[in-house]
Amino acid sequence: MTNASPLGAAVLRALDARGWSIAAAESLTGGRVIATLVDVPGASAHVRGGIVAYATDVKASQLGVDADLLAARGAVDAEVAVQMAQGVRRALRADVGISTTGVAGPGAQEGKPVGTVHIAVVTPEETAVSSLELTGTRDQIRTGTVQSVLELTLAVVGGIRHP
Amino acid sequence: MTNASPLGAAVLRALDARGWSIAAAESLTGGRVIATLVDVPGASAHVRGGIVAYATDVKASQLGVDADLLAARGAVDAEVAVQMAQGVRRALRADVGISTTGVAGPGAQEGKPVGTVHIAVVTPEETAVSSLELTGTRDQIRTGTVQSVLELTLAVVGGIRHP
Repeated sequence: MTNASPLGAAVLRALDARGWSIAAAESLTGGRVIATLVDVPGASAHVRGGIVAYATDVKASQLGVDADLLAARGAVDAEVAVQMAQGVRRALRADVGISTTGVAGPGAQEGKPVGTVHIAVVTPEETAVSSLELTGTRDQIRTGTVQSVLELTLAVVGGIRHP
Repeated sequence: MTNASPLGAAVLRALDARGWSIAAAESLTGGRVIATLVDVPGASAHVRGGIVAYATDVKASQLGVDADLLAARGAVDAEVAVQMAQGVRRALRADVGISTTGVAGPGAQEGKPVGTVHIAVVTPEETAVSSLELTGTRDQIRTGTVQSVLELTLAVVGGIRHP
């Protein structure tokens, strides 16, 4: 019996086909992305771990996100998402780094409306970033973010974007 | 509408009463502990973040767990749990560090049977560690570990152990 996500399992299969490991840097999803991957049986062959940088200063101290960038644009920003993915990839020595940052609500954050989300995937071959405007409750925005970043990861690692 | 855990909300209330922040270091739970806390509305006031050290070497590199200890006893060990909690507390500059390490299965790990779990809570005043033998599926063992570490956190931070 398992409740592992089919999307998480597909990401693990795509990583296995490339021989790549993965690590996640999460803000608004707070650990849900890496938990979804770890739930897949056999995850330990490819999952290095993750860093949940919920407080903004942790994005700089643990992930190496440029403090000036954080001060200028805030934590909810596409370039911050890219630097988070690069940072966790470097810190945990993973082949693939993925990241989430955004506003789950209930209120706006740093002038960004609820549902503003940026996700990034960095591999040895490619850097992909996507900016989303999600709707729904706190939980729905988090769930949508997890699904979106895993779909982007599958597309980039699985090569769906480059048929 | 929220699906936040009542236990997670109770931990946040106990932290609020002490004016303390929290960070989590997770192995077998893979992000579920910090995700449970982040799901509580208002979590950002007290939750710093977390480090998911799923691969054993990440426990040394990111959390400062003694590499000789890991080599001698493996990752599933009570002292490793304490060092993980101390390490995430230090790395993320949190008042309270909590941790999980153990064997979710399906197979034994480093000679430790499935369901062997160690959890720790380190505050400015106390270090608590608990060793459990859980039963059930991979998912049930993870769920039980999350509940156990949050219960221990509530007991230590809320002072239930010291009436």
